[in-house]
Amino acid sequence: MSDFEDLMAFSHITAALGQIAGRLGWDQEAMMPRGAVEQRAEEMAALEGVLHARKADAKVGEWLSSIDDASLDGTGQAQMRLIRKDYVRSTKVPADLAAEIARVTSRSQGQWAQARADEDVKAFLPVLKEVVSLKRQEGQALADGGEVYDAMIGDYEPEMTAAELSIMFNALRPRLVDLRSKILQSGSPKELSGTFPEGVQMKLARKLARCFGYDMSHGRVDKVVHPFCSGSGLDVRITTRTNENDPFNCIYSTIHEVGHAAYEQGISRDYLLTPIGQGVSMGVHESQSRIYENQLGRSRAFTSWLFDEMTRAFGAFGISDAESFYGTVNRVHNGYIRTEADEVQYNLHIMLRFDLERALMDGNLQVKDLETAWNDRFCQDFGYRVDKPSNGCLQDVHWSLGLFGYFPTYSLGNVYAGCLYEKMRVAVSDLDTQLSRGDTRAATGWLRDNLQQHGSLRTPRETIMHASGAVPSSTPFLTYLETKFSELYRLT
Amino acid sequence: MSDFEDLMAFSHITAALGQIAGRLGWDQEAMMPRGAVEQRAEEMAALEGVLHARKADAKVGEWLSSIDDASLDGTGQAQMRLIRKDYVRSTKVPADLAAEIARVTSRSQGQWAQARADEDVKAFLPVLKEVVSLKRQEGQALADGGEVYDAMIGDYEPEMTAAELSIMFNALRPRLVDLRSKILQSGSPKELSGTFPEGVQMKLARKLARCFGYDMSHGRVDKVVHPFCSGSGLDVRITTRTNENDPFNCIYSTIHEVGHAAYEQGISRDYLLTPIGQGVSMGVHESQSRIYENQLGRSRAFTSWLFDEMTRAFGAFGISDAESFYGTVNRVHNGYIRTEADEVQYNLHIMLRFDLERALMDGNLQVKDLETAWNDRFCQDFGYRVDKPSNGCLQDVHWSLGLFGYFPTYSLGNVYAGCLYEKMRVAVSDLDTQLSRGDTRAATGWLRDNLQQHGSLRTPRETIMHASGAVPSSTPFLTYLETKFSELYRLT
Repeated sequence: MSDFEDLMAFSHITAALGQIAGRLGWDQEAMMPRGAVEQRAEEMAALEGVLHARKADAKVGEWLSSIDDASLDGTGQAQMRLIRKDYVRSTKVPADLAAEIARVTSRSQGQWAQARADEDVKAFLPVLKEVVSLKRQEGQALADGGEVYDAMIGDYEPEMTAAELSIMFNALRPRLVDLRSKILQSGSPKELSGTFPEGVQMKLARKLARCFGYDMSHGRVDKVVHPFCSGSGLDVRITTRTNENDPFNCIYSTIHEVGHAAYEQGISRDYLLTPIGQGVSMGVHESQSRIYENQLGRSRAFTSWLFDEMTRAFGAFGISDAESFYGTVNRVHNGYIRTEADEVQYNLHIMLRFDLERALMDGNLQVKDLETAWNDRFCQDFGYRVDKPSNGCLQDVHWSLGLFGYFPTYSLGNVYAGCLYEKMRVAVSDLDTQLSRGDTRAATGWLRDNLQQHGSLRTPRETIMHASGAVPSSTPFLTYLETKFSELYRLT
Repeated sequence: MSDFEDLMAFSHITAALGQIAGRLGWDQEAMMPRGAVEQRAEEMAALEGVLHARKADAKVGEWLSSIDDASLDGTGQAQMRLIRKDYVRSTKVPADLAAEIARVTSRSQGQWAQARADEDVKAFLPVLKEVVSLKRQEGQALADGGEVYDAMIGDYEPEMTAAELSIMFNALRPRLVDLRSKILQSGSPKELSGTFPEGVQMKLARKLARCFGYDMSHGRVDKVVHPFCSGSGLDVRITTRTNENDPFNCIYSTIHEVGHAAYEQGISRDYLLTPIGQGVSMGVHESQSRIYENQLGRSRAFTSWLFDEMTRAFGAFGISDAESFYGTVNRVHNGYIRTEADEVQYNLHIMLRFDLERALMDGNLQVKDLETAWNDRFCQDFGYRVDKPSNGCLQDVHWSLGLFGYFPTYSLGNVYAGCLYEKMRVAVSDLDTQLSRGDTRAATGWLRDNLQQHGSLRTPRETIMHASGAVPSSTPFLTYLETKFSELYRLT
């Protein structure tokens, strides 16, 4: 075998072990008995140690030196680029630090869930302080003297920086604030009320998952506290949640996670268990989940079909017609929870987290001051006070998992989704007609053909450019939002 | 740290990775989408490769040489004995053979399930032939020129041999055949009939699991095709199955698996993620599952309580009173399926498998002739012909998993259960009174204190001797069976 083939065989095993780590994460949230937390932390640390050792293995360094990238085809060069990036990252982070992060975040996740249930921020802060300290150490090891938070972002969105995101957020904010202000001054669509049995919601969720092309023979749907998607290749599992007073929570969590899953399931089988064989970045991933959830799932066309499905599933539920239902689905309203936020306000939630976690990483904010900082900033942005920690700084799982740098990729995903949707509308000329029949095949097929199938073949930015045919910009997203909500709320 | 501490730290990580492998096995049976089989095979092979490399790591060999066992306490010496056994085994089996076995058995398991569903033996034979060939290679590597099948047995029952089992089986057979013949000539208790909703069965199963001391905060109960127990320490999961015409299948599968789980959950936390921290052998494990299921669960005392529970759960179900119910539970009847066999005939099923798999391993039986050999032997032992493969050689998952040498430990477990039960009846003087109230605490507590808590501290034989206070013998088991069934069937 050539050196490249040897490297790919080695990488194949590393990828398989990485899939196992992902599945343990799924198990921990969806299946694991609560008393198993401490043992699971040991198991995750053990596996993380093995993965780290493989990624930083001296053999990999030798292969990377001995292989001439120019002798490979484009795919081979992309594999090399991804393996090299992983190797460089892994050799910078000491193995014991990586294992300790795995151990502590596994434990802290359980403590976060308990603290959230108990509305007890103080119970969570000691372990969060540990997590922040460990992640800062990791960031310093990665940053080469640059901004620690940039190194964190790079784990989720290669080649992106906090400075660039700041510029993007500063461009978004005034137009979003303006739009939000105009909307909240106008009349509000009817709110959903009533009781929607959880079993019926789960049945509808599975139907919607299939409607958006989720392949159940290579996945499954389970209930968790905080929905996520897990796995690549032939085993891509999604999770959702139910609230019997709010079926939209379940419906749109499901469609969102199906967007993530469709990306992983849509990647060419040629790339199975190779570095290319998974989504290229969180921002691009989020572009898929958000375009499924919002541009498609919350469109007037699709909600007209969904209105009939809801009526079939739950009987009459207090909304008189599809047009009113469209308003209800897209109702802009005050609220505390990011994952329940409407499209207009969602990015304000992200900007809050972006600024706070950047400050935590830079050392400009201490963990003990986090709750106050969150509550002050929330009041400043949204105009009312946080009422309880589960509606405030305990609402998201991310920080307990050490996922600093992850939040801004949600807004980046919205921007990317805007770029893709603009192009998709040109490519699929009768999109609305199809969506009004609940037929997503042309839309999701376009995404699969132009983006999903390629996995990590290109960099994140190139991936979006390849699919959309243009340099990524926040303009299409803002135009989409302003057009949709001006029309919906009859703004002038 | 001392060399011993270093070795134990290394062993701790290996044990944690071993727990992950076990959980993947659980996932594959209980949760995994069917389209993920091929990818899972790669994942299992990757993890098996890592485990094999750790067990055979030269560092372990050096530690084993440098550490003076005599300088350690009894626990330390037991840890050394177990690590040494694993190391010697692992260095004998080439890494690529171990990985190939993991890969092929992961795939063959899916093919077995499909072949079983399709009643298609031929579809299963090619992959079974691969499994047999790989396991024979492994056996030859382990056997040091001795009997290949002995090496296989040693994986599940250290220090046991086919010759010794043959002697035991030859002693059991005539008395079992005699007892069976007398029973089948006498009148038969009433058979259960009717429909028992699966949801109610699962609810009762969970109640019974708790009744026998299963700790739900460190485990969970799910439905699968072929029930099993998985995991050690803080995460021990059981599975069961339901058949709406036969609630005993679910009830006694559950109690059986709880017996296994109680052993793992009962081991002292001091041994968590160490070699001592898991059941010492399959035979001893099976002694726990069988004593829970049979000596306790199928006793007149316990079934009088279960009769009331069944009536509460399902309403009147056609059996008039507790004494009739005891007869129905213990009804000796013709049947094809090992796991559904009564206590009297169960070991005849085992002896059939023991002889066939020994012949497969010795090369005296070819895979292509397996179905005929099975069917001929079944007819000889049971007096009627196998009607379909799922009632014949496709009924058990074991061979598809490469678990040759495992079956005889079931009968060994029955013998051990007989030894333990004889002693337990002396130690817990009012056992029947307690069981008739559905109170298993004294019985299961006695097992935990005298056997379960010690894990693998002693060898299998010593474990039984320590608990029962006597050299293991098949006499108590035969006496128990003959007494119980002579009385039940009014044999003279």
